[in-house]
Amino acid sequence: MPVNLAPLQAEKLLPVKGISLGIAEAGIKKPGRKDLLVMRLGEHARVAGVFTLNRFCAAPVTLCRQHLLSGQAIRALVVNTGNANAGTGEVGMAHARQTCAELARLLDCQEAQILPFSTGVILEPLPVEKILAGLPAAISNLKESNWFDAAHAIMTTDIQPKAASSQIVLGGKTVTITGIAKGSGMIHPNMATMLGYIATDAAIAPALLQSLVKHAANQSFNCITVDGDTSTNDSFMLIATGEAEAAEVTDADSPEFIALSRAVTDIARTLAQAIVRDGEGATKFMTIEVEGGKTQAECRQVAYAIARSPLVKTAFFASDPNLGRILAAIGYAGVADLDVSLLKLYLGDVLVAENGGRAANYQEKDGQRVMKEAEILVRVQLGRDEAHATVWTCDFSYDYVKINAEYRS
Amino acid sequence: MPVNLAPLQAEKLLPVKGISLGIAEAGIKKPGRKDLLVMRLGEHARVAGVFTLNRFCAAPVTLCRQHLLSGQAIRALVVNTGNANAGTGEVGMAHARQTCAELARLLDCQEAQILPFSTGVILEPLPVEKILAGLPAAISNLKESNWFDAAHAIMTTDIQPKAASSQIVLGGKTVTITGIAKGSGMIHPNMATMLGYIATDAAIAPALLQSLVKHAANQSFNCITVDGDTSTNDSFMLIATGEAEAAEVTDADSPEFIALSRAVTDIARTLAQAIVRDGEGATKFMTIEVEGGKTQAECRQVAYAIARSPLVKTAFFASDPNLGRILAAIGYAGVADLDVSLLKLYLGDVLVAENGGRAANYQEKDGQRVMKEAEILVRVQLGRDEAHATVWTCDFSYDYVKINAEYRS
Repeated sequence: MPVNLAPLQAEKLLPVKGISLGIAEAGIKKPGRKDLLVMRLGEHARVAGVFTLNRFCAAPVTLCRQHLLSGQAIRALVVNTGNANAGTGEVGMAHARQTCAELARLLDCQEAQILPFSTGVILEPLPVEKILAGLPAAISNLKESNWFDAAHAIMTTDIQPKAASSQIVLGGKTVTITGIAKGSGMIHPNMATMLGYIATDAAIAPALLQSLVKHAANQSFNCITVDGDTSTNDSFMLIATGEAEAAEVTDADSPEFIALSRAVTDIARTLAQAIVRDGEGATKFMTIEVEGGKTQAECRQVAYAIARSPLVKTAFFASDPNLGRILAAIGYAGVADLDVSLLKLYLGDVLVAENGGRAANYQEKDGQRVMKEAEILVRVQLGRDEAHATVWTCDFSYDYVKINAEYRS
Repeated sequence: MPVNLAPLQAEKLLPVKGISLGIAEAGIKKPGRKDLLVMRLGEHARVAGVFTLNRFCAAPVTLCRQHLLSGQAIRALVVNTGNANAGTGEVGMAHARQTCAELARLLDCQEAQILPFSTGVILEPLPVEKILAGLPAAISNLKESNWFDAAHAIMTTDIQPKAASSQIVLGGKTVTITGIAKGSGMIHPNMATMLGYIATDAAIAPALLQSLVKHAANQSFNCITVDGDTSTNDSFMLIATGEAEAAEVTDADSPEFIALSRAVTDIARTLAQAIVRDGEGATKFMTIEVEGGKTQAECRQVAYAIARSPLVKTAFFASDPNLGRILAAIGYAGVADLDVSLLKLYLGDVLVAENGGRAANYQEKDGQRVMKEAEILVRVQLGRDEAHATVWTCDFSYDYVKINAEYRS
């Protein structure tokens, strides 16, 4: 079961002016499962995104990049679950193009004004006919209030849907921010995660929108890992419809941009943490804070070494304070000149290690107490300089093996 | 159960002239478990070793490095299981020194002529009194024929002991090579693995011995992974006692050195593969061959990305040819300019992927057939140049989680 992830309440998800969502059952997944989502954008909408750096990136990711570069205004996004359309070669590209062309025809726009997304199994042909056949039903269902159903429609091995909303006031006008995301396995985003969408009705200049989506990704999706596997389909999109009647935000130093940046990043972080809380087989949620590094990059290296270690993750699952495994992970993280005698390791509020060994006052029962919690903070002080980084992850349980051994059955 | 790892037969392990082994029950592990090993060397013996690059390396690793650098002839090695003496700070160093000093006193030599090794749990104080008290029993047990018991005495979570022997003829004289190793979890050696010892009665010049131990490690222990966790205690030692009456090998280009190098490397590879076959929870043994790279380093990167992926490892456990997971791992391995359209993926003799997607003739049942085997070859052709690399690994099962969740209970 997801770790401290409250069930999603439909009424807490606020519509965003200028974006409507339509859901359909295209028959890609089992009967009764919504598996197709269309997001239609108003005429003032601007879209920016970041995508996986996986070299085997999916056909829709390649096409999204092309369509965004074409400079044409994006009119709609289309998402299918049940098949990733990755590792599908030229045929996969043709399928993604067909999907865009058909949706463009139905919405009376150009193919390059559509952004396609897919998630699911890799290396199997996309059942494109089912998607084409499902599009009219999704379009007839388009509503501004459909975020709750949309969050459900993009799920794969997720147990719970992930979504969040907030409002801020910009220049006297209320602006809404709502986002959805999915993902539970193959989670180690390198640019963004499979799949996150945040929309706001604020108006933002294109260059600022692009810098904001990168910033938000780096503070959220790029700080999580479930299994260390970077997906072929990771995509995180930020949509600004500009329909809140608030003045366009054009200055990166303005209080309006700072407020909007904080609000978007908060939503992105909530969604990213929700993905970890619902990580495959997760029973615990761990925050790994690494402080006192020379660079943020080395702090991230250390944090990810801990967060990815199967030995650390199984010890957390067992609530066993076998904390030498954390020291081992720090030691192999690749910080070549690390002086372990300066390092301090805290588990929650408990000082576990210093001076290269176990802290004098550390007692097993104190470590045990913290390990039994569902939310655990691991704090490492490197004692080198001022840089820091935070990574969120979950534990490794029997259910992780079960879910992934039986994924296609 | 270990994968295709035949039970060790005592009579197949050949004694090596000039090295005797003594085993004792020091009471570090449960009653009835041998946990202390002394290896005593003849006066002509030379020793070379490689050690973990983990910055949290264990106290005995630090002391081994110092003693080898001191240039004094090594007289004995001492190994305890049940406690790694890692993450133990200055106290750990003092404990390792005490162990060496006491064994030196008993064998009438200098402290710097002893090499200490430990394996087991990290971050807990070494029960040094038990080790000191156990040394006399180990010494009274010293025999050239004790390799079989020695292989047992260094085990931790290993199910089966690992050892191998061979003989070659050098300049008309028969030379013996015998090695033992242990390790089952925290296996992702970066220099050598926790713990490997190979002895020969050949005579080898010191510089050649050092180059040979590095070569053998790079072709064996440095090509395996179980869980991606590099241990704090990895040590691989090569001992040449020089008592076979064969002439000293001093020329790196001589047929004698080439024959010896091949024989030592073969034993090292057998031991390294035995560690993977007995990897924690292993049910399958996988060979990952990556060919056609620009450099060996990038081939290793790709092979390790596949070998470390929990998604790939759980698919192998389930015999599920969900092979898109392998493409995803290749894609995120970090080869920035990889052209996926040139890549070919084979599972055993089955061509799975080419031209960026599924091979035209690939059928699920062919993949399924290979996945059901206990020994599986994954072959990746990068289509870039001539470099290649091989990595051995095992799958990820329920038992992996069970073993590591219950390690200390």
